[in-house]
Amino acid sequence: MSTPLLGVLGGMGPLAALDFARKLLALNKVETEQQHIPTLLWNVPQIPDRQLALSRGGPSPLPAMLQGIAVLNAAGATRIAIPCNTAHHWFDELAAASTAPLFHIVDATLAQLGGQQEIVGLLATRGALQSLLYQDRFDALRQRYAVNTEDELDELFMPGCYAIKHGKIVEGGRLLEAAGKRLLARGATKLVLACTEIATGLERINSPQLAASVDTNEALARTCLQYWREQNT
Amino acid sequence: MSTPLLGVLGGMGPLAALDFARKLLALNKVETEQQHIPTLLWNVPQIPDRQLALSRGGPSPLPAMLQGIAVLNAAGATRIAIPCNTAHHWFDELAAASTAPLFHIVDATLAQLGGQQEIVGLLATRGALQSLLYQDRFDALRQRYAVNTEDELDELFMPGCYAIKHGKIVEGGRLLEAAGKRLLARGATKLVLACTEIATGLERINSPQLAASVDTNEALARTCLQYWREQNT
Repeated sequence: MSTPLLGVLGGMGPLAALDFARKLLALNKVETEQQHIPTLLWNVPQIPDRQLALSRGGPSPLPAMLQGIAVLNAAGATRIAIPCNTAHHWFDELAAASTAPLFHIVDATLAQLGGQQEIVGLLATRGALQSLLYQDRFDALRQRYAVNTEDELDELFMPGCYAIKHGKIVEGGRLLEAAGKRLLARGATKLVLACTEIATGLERINSPQLAASVDTNEALARTCLQYWREQNT
Repeated sequence: MSTPLLGVLGGMGPLAALDFARKLLALNKVETEQQHIPTLLWNVPQIPDRQLALSRGGPSPLPAMLQGIAVLNAAGATRIAIPCNTAHHWFDELAAASTAPLFHIVDATLAQLGGQQEIVGLLATRGALQSLLYQDRFDALRQRYAVNTEDELDELFMPGCYAIKHGKIVEGGRLLEAAGKRLLARGATKLVLACTEIATGLERINSPQLAASVDTNEALARTCLQYWREQNT
């Protein structure tokens, strides 16, 4: 059996990938640092914008993502995680090109959601919303959900997401929190932070919304840790 | 010319490597995330303890580090950074095995020190102190320095360093701050945080010592960014 090595297809954005990597460490209570999960993080942000590709027909990020998949496989990755929700629109193409099986962030998130909720508030980029990544799964589960309106995406969610990407973490956190507040006002009882930039912003401003949220980066990290523990028992 | 790719030989410890990677992003003011430096982070902590190898004749970390160097070179790294001071004891062997040139953390740190200081307080692991990594350079520059006593290493510095490695960041930060305080009390006018775990602890407790310190992780990140900017001008 190959030595376990978690490959991470990062760069989307690079800060979100580090947030994921940090959660992998924080969730793993260890006696020595040698017990942490061995990770190879391809954090190469020269990838065309995922959500612009989906929402405005911008250049496809797929060729650049496939380069990352190739690097991780060549280096011996035994599993691959992708800490970017929108990138999962291309999951099937990436999985087909990879010898190492890929974890799916939506599976990881649903496992953390804790069963049926009254109404899930789905916070995601316009591109991810248009690709129906989460909505198709919610429909199949007869799970009700609410999403931001076009105006809320324009004025709150998308500027908040890009603020985080450009290093304006507090400003981004406040905008994203405001976007979440709109969903809570429309009856959402739990938020799914379906963009890996969101938690970075909400954590920086200590948002109370975190207590009622599923952080997709954290959910993905939990799935990876479960794999690592199975390899070591 | 090859596409620039910064390889990072991490895992020593894995949290210190993420601190370095985060500083690479934080120091780089960008308009879009695509302008961040492309990085491949080998964060594999299954490396024998560096400072125990040096201070107590424990197993050598060199074979495991050479595996990481091989992975980074095979993946196309054009430069390699090692966010661990103690690991630099094996710098020559690592450099000899690498096609990609290695940045040296002591060079990066001296560049940030800002010339002659009254007395430098050198905070480092027992292993790094025994290898004279920094002291030889200070002696050559006729730079006076102070280091922790054996008792201070036993009671403050080493437990603080391992606390960080095991995820007890606040506890570690307080112990490391106390170790630094001893050096300041003996006349040090600037501290060199010559162990990449230290800044993580001091930042968590918002230590005022940071203002009078050179953070070796940040210094290494600045050197890497300078390389990246030279590639893009």
